[in-house]
Amino acid sequence: MTDFAATRRAFHLPEGITYLDGNSLGPMPLAARDRAASMIRDEWGEMLITGWNRAGWYAQPRRVGDRIARLIGAGPGEVVMGDTLSIKVFQALSAARALRPDRRVILSDSGNFPSDLYVAQGLARAVDAELRVVAPEDVTAAIDGDLAVLMLTEVDYRTGRRHDMAALTERAHAAGALTLWDLAHSAGAVDLDLTGADADFAVGCTYKYLNGGPGAPAFIWTHPRHADAVQPILQGWMGHRAPFAFDQDYAAAPGIERMRVGTPPVIALAVLDAAMDVWEGVAPADLRARSIDLTEAFIAGVEAACPDLVLNSPRDSARRGSQVGFRHPQGYAVMQALIAEGIIGDFRAPDVLRFGFAPLYNDLEDVGRAVEVLARLLRDGSWDRAKFHQLADVT
Amino acid sequence: MTDFAATRRAFHLPEGITYLDGNSLGPMPLAARDRAASMIRDEWGEMLITGWNRAGWYAQPRRVGDRIARLIGAGPGEVVMGDTLSIKVFQALSAARALRPDRRVILSDSGNFPSDLYVAQGLARAVDAELRVVAPEDVTAAIDGDLAVLMLTEVDYRTGRRHDMAALTERAHAAGALTLWDLAHSAGAVDLDLTGADADFAVGCTYKYLNGGPGAPAFIWTHPRHADAVQPILQGWMGHRAPFAFDQDYAAAPGIERMRVGTPPVIALAVLDAAMDVWEGVAPADLRARSIDLTEAFIAGVEAACPDLVLNSPRDSARRGSQVGFRHPQGYAVMQALIAEGIIGDFRAPDVLRFGFAPLYNDLEDVGRAVEVLARLLRDGSWDRAKFHQLADVT
Repeated sequence: MTDFAATRRAFHLPEGITYLDGNSLGPMPLAARDRAASMIRDEWGEMLITGWNRAGWYAQPRRVGDRIARLIGAGPGEVVMGDTLSIKVFQALSAARALRPDRRVILSDSGNFPSDLYVAQGLARAVDAELRVVAPEDVTAAIDGDLAVLMLTEVDYRTGRRHDMAALTERAHAAGALTLWDLAHSAGAVDLDLTGADADFAVGCTYKYLNGGPGAPAFIWTHPRHADAVQPILQGWMGHRAPFAFDQDYAAAPGIERMRVGTPPVIALAVLDAAMDVWEGVAPADLRARSIDLTEAFIAGVEAACPDLVLNSPRDSARRGSQVGFRHPQGYAVMQALIAEGIIGDFRAPDVLRFGFAPLYNDLEDVGRAVEVLARLLRDGSWDRAKFHQLADVT
Repeated sequence: MTDFAATRRAFHLPEGITYLDGNSLGPMPLAARDRAASMIRDEWGEMLITGWNRAGWYAQPRRVGDRIARLIGAGPGEVVMGDTLSIKVFQALSAARALRPDRRVILSDSGNFPSDLYVAQGLARAVDAELRVVAPEDVTAAIDGDLAVLMLTEVDYRTGRRHDMAALTERAHAAGALTLWDLAHSAGAVDLDLTGADADFAVGCTYKYLNGGPGAPAFIWTHPRHADAVQPILQGWMGHRAPFAFDQDYAAAPGIERMRVGTPPVIALAVLDAAMDVWEGVAPADLRARSIDLTEAFIAGVEAACPDLVLNSPRDSARRGSQVGFRHPQGYAVMQALIAEGIIGDFRAPDVLRFGFAPLYNDLEDVGRAVEVLARLLRDGSWDRAKFHQLADVT
């Protein structure tokens, strides 16, 4: 059994705060703080340029990728780190689309994070593709023989709704299309099996449930059957077969290495690497079980105590990630009042209070405290003070 | 007058090391080490998600960009930070090419850093453009009416040869083309005037002469006449007009902000921001004068003491950046021997010993020591020991 009391102790959680926003930015693992200091002082400071070899900076994007692979159902050597999630979406999407040159439709849904849609729009303009966006519940029916790529975020950033990756991938493959999964709200939050689902491409960020720090680098996975076939549009020297030969012509590195582009973000990768230490003893099945316990307890608690709130997430935990949303007409003001009381969730327009439950450090006491404060604020109307109205007005 | 003794004291320079490789990776400013620690502890650790507003993380890419703008002859609000240099080359090149839709030729030279050429090859394949690569001395003659974009690295990474930015830009404009300048080996090394040269786009990295740390983020500049006209292919949420409206359709932010893509690398930007403190009292003209003093003294010293070495950089300092190369048939082994003696330069195939002189922390004593050790190794043949041969054999 995973020792979640121990994983909770691995974080700095500020006094008096109940942090339910790890689906936006994970808190600081103590090891990450220490590793940043030692990396900067001992590696950059003392090794200087020789750190690239002596401290293993070159190999870091793959080495850290391997640590993430285990959590997403990918194999060793199949994941590489770098850039941002939007850049990785561009790489995976352009690669997938190029593998289906006779088709021009990219299908996504309105529950996708907007940046993924923006990336697809930019690519579509450049390479003569077409982005179709349907409602999440209409995705299955919209998969047809025109489709080049099905691009979805597995867990909806607002509602927590979780797509059925295996079923949608099977359906897409039957139609001759490829799949690209954004795991931003999945990695570190739910159990994942990219290999078992037979997905084609996946990307994700590491500053949410993986706790890599603000702006931490993204990851990208390509199924091994495609890894040597894709020709990236974003060709950089770190994805070259022999970066230090300084050839004038690009020749893609074998496998996932070709998805590297420029010089890796060494300091950020060291911080993330340390954050991944916390995951060492964590079994994905335990993670999922605890996530369900926390979210179910929160839903039950809020529905019992806060009749004004309307659940904005699937009730069936099999169809939900590790976050829960509730709607309230004055959601922004309510969230500001909650934050003032030390319960940190966040707000998504127009009216959603969003709470993320990170099994590594959230526990049932956090759930109880959040329910209690939320119920009190709504019951006595103390959320409805002028200053929160003012804050709401300027946003 | 700039106080270069003070700027030198702002760095940690390891005992016994003469560091002449700041053109590859700058050393650690003491303020950068301290700022990383405090940023992680006090901002990420304590503010958590609220750091985006309270600690100014959102505004950081522009704020740090303004600090770099001063050093490259750009105006406030014209530079933004993020991603890597290769990504920024892609953004600038794709934007420039789209501004000349009726032309398909991108011209560069064989002195450009290979990653820039790889980026251009990838883009050219995607958008039906053509990359032409000529020798650096043939660039002027190759500018013709087919040209969409002239893409050059101002200072050659191997030879230190510096292009005449103003003259080439004028020539390109006369032919109806736009210019993109890579300032990787220029920013923080030479005096720059993008505005005066009337350039169109510029990009650069910050881990060389700007000392932002390994893998520090890149910068991009767009001339204000283009900034609201370009439509990025890489469209991400941070470049959206209203990122937190979560619109499904991309609408580019005004000006240079549209060149932002994904979530910014907050920790790395904090480190870079601290590194930029060292530049506060530095006048670009003083920087350039000191750079010329250092490189001229090194060339004179080596040529007097090391008859086996052949200068691989322009002798005319007006045509040279802040680095000097010398050729030796066993260059790799000689450089390994130098490094073993504490003189850190680097080697570029096939036979170039490369020495970077960073005016912020290198001084004439460094020059004297490097010349002395190099001369001794070559005179007594002690570079030619078996272990250095072995090292050379495996590279």
